[in-house]
Amino acid sequence: MKIDGIHYRSVWVDRDDGWSVRIFDQTKLPWAIEILRLTDADQAAHAIRTMQTRGAPLIGAVAAYGVALAMRADASTAHLDRVVEMLGKTRPTAINLRWALERMRAALHNLSPADRVAAAYAEAAAICDDDVETCRRIGEHGLPLLREIAARKGPDQRVNVLTHCNAGWLATVDYGTALSPIFQAHDEGLNVHVWVDETRPRNQGAALTAFELVKHGVPHTVVADNAGGHLMQHGEVDICIVGTDRVTRQGDVANKIGTYLKALAAKDNGVPFWVALPHSTLDMRARDGVAEIPIEERAEAEVTDLTGRAADGRIETIRVVAEGSPAANPAFDVTPARLVTGLITERGRTEASEAGLRALYPEKA
Amino acid sequence: MKIDGIHYRSVWVDRDDGWSVRIFDQTKLPWAIEILRLTDADQAAHAIRTMQTRGAPLIGAVAAYGVALAMRADASTAHLDRVVEMLGKTRPTAINLRWALERMRAALHNLSPADRVAAAYAEAAAICDDDVETCRRIGEHGLPLLREIAARKGPDQRVNVLTHCNAGWLATVDYGTALSPIFQAHDEGLNVHVWVDETRPRNQGAALTAFELVKHGVPHTVVADNAGGHLMQHGEVDICIVGTDRVTRQGDVANKIGTYLKALAAKDNGVPFWVALPHSTLDMRARDGVAEIPIEERAEAEVTDLTGRAADGRIETIRVVAEGSPAANPAFDVTPARLVTGLITERGRTEASEAGLRALYPEKA
Repeated sequence: MKIDGIHYRSVWVDRDDGWSVRIFDQTKLPWAIEILRLTDADQAAHAIRTMQTRGAPLIGAVAAYGVALAMRADASTAHLDRVVEMLGKTRPTAINLRWALERMRAALHNLSPADRVAAAYAEAAAICDDDVETCRRIGEHGLPLLREIAARKGPDQRVNVLTHCNAGWLATVDYGTALSPIFQAHDEGLNVHVWVDETRPRNQGAALTAFELVKHGVPHTVVADNAGGHLMQHGEVDICIVGTDRVTRQGDVANKIGTYLKALAAKDNGVPFWVALPHSTLDMRARDGVAEIPIEERAEAEVTDLTGRAADGRIETIRVVAEGSPAANPAFDVTPARLVTGLITERGRTEASEAGLRALYPEKA
Repeated sequence: MKIDGIHYRSVWVDRDDGWSVRIFDQTKLPWAIEILRLTDADQAAHAIRTMQTRGAPLIGAVAAYGVALAMRADASTAHLDRVVEMLGKTRPTAINLRWALERMRAALHNLSPADRVAAAYAEAAAICDDDVETCRRIGEHGLPLLREIAARKGPDQRVNVLTHCNAGWLATVDYGTALSPIFQAHDEGLNVHVWVDETRPRNQGAALTAFELVKHGVPHTVVADNAGGHLMQHGEVDICIVGTDRVTRQGDVANKIGTYLKALAAKDNGVPFWVALPHSTLDMRARDGVAEIPIEERAEAEVTDLTGRAADGRIETIRVVAEGSPAANPAFDVTPARLVTGLITERGRTEASEAGLRALYPEKA
């Protein structure tokens, strides 16, 4: 990803000190590009919990670096176990977090404490490099879907993709999942246009996906989350592509709250509904997503209050809910596999089913 | 409706001068209760267009008074026709506007200009009185649905109603449509709780429905529009009740953008989906709602900017969409009759079908 010509990843080791960890403060985007410095595991946990860093693949990567930071302070096995547990509790729904932490524990557990710091940084770096390559390939495997629509419609007509939340480079280490094929399609000259769901309550669409698309020059239009069904009824959406925080072995998809509603509308209007994910988002232990995936309940203030830029440039937080009204804030929902046209992974596309997933990932338990 | 113990309607003739028209400025709610004074038809048109006054039944009533104000200035037939046409163009989707204006024209057209002013005020007042009685009866006919759920669940368990947008007394002259049975249920002691969809982009749920429910003391929780499907998947919604801006003769329902998504989720989860409406919302000339009902496209700024109250009490408008991103703002969508469990009218409940509507309204062409 490039911001004003400079290449970034969404998490990296500080180039000057060689050990502290850098992330964008995503709660400040799109109004300010602020880079945070994490120096211990508690700071990493805080950044994940408060969503300064977010996106299922990215929180796995940041948690991995959180373990590396922890090993610098105390490389004992007891501390390793404690930190893995502590970081694992920061957010409940995205399985990538647990996946990355288990990978870190497996890489470090049998080493002597003296070897753990270097090994932890190496493993976290490998997780990041893998994620970058994985996301690039997700783009390659999603791209033919967009090419096919473009070929059918002809060059004068835009390929309309609807996406929900942010599954771009800010949600991963680079490239993104759902947005990766869109960036590639745009780069090869396809006439692609993105309907960006605002994604209440945290507005990751309006703030982050829109920011990425502006920076990359991809034509897009922000719409209220309510608008997608109407757009589909009127033929304005050719394909939906979203990311995910956890996919069960039968292909149920946990993703940002509201995804399920878009999948229902896609089904009702014959619009293909695709989900892009890396292997680390698979939870083969879970089957029934609605029953088994824990759904995070976040703070009421995320619904009642909004932050943005006033006309004079100040960043302001305002309340938008009537005084005295409580709010509830479930952060994810589950889209049953029957509503999912297919999954786009780094190994190719497959149907959202146990057979489809086992064919692609025979090594997964 | 009562605000702090004082009984109001949503539109009324000024008690002091006996001719100017008073409405709440609904764009200022819930933060300030400001009452506007309309003295000519242009002001009435402006109030409707900018949504200072809104809600399908209410804009019909305000437009009727707009005609009365116009007759004071010039009671000629040419002016009557011009004003009816001008007011009819202020908003395209809600059919009540056209219904009220045609009723006004029919009442005034054959009178001599000298008789038109008094007749116009009388007819507008009759439209308002009819709306109040109609909404009271809608409440009576919706109430048994809530009583039935309460009886099934028992007194310890709350009856969970989900509603979208605002179809309360602020959307009508008094009582409301979708909220009318809820107020009546609460008043007779049912343990009713309302999930209030925020209703982006204009937040009529968070600002107006929540305000009404706070003032009336009805337990409720505001949620992002995205949350409804998840709540239904987990058995947290017993019934959906929404208002409407136009119902076609086959029972298709135009309502605030996003209603269709909730109806899909209700269908998918076996949750009854009811639509409350007065006779004036019926458009028997239209059949296929998706194809035939004009959908208003409103200003981009309603999506990109939000107004609310800062911590220090100032009312602020902030931008929440990334700089450089355009937005689209379709204001309504159409829910096909197949997703509607039934219609609640002032004459009783019926299925959303031509047979159902003709049985209830045999006199409608």
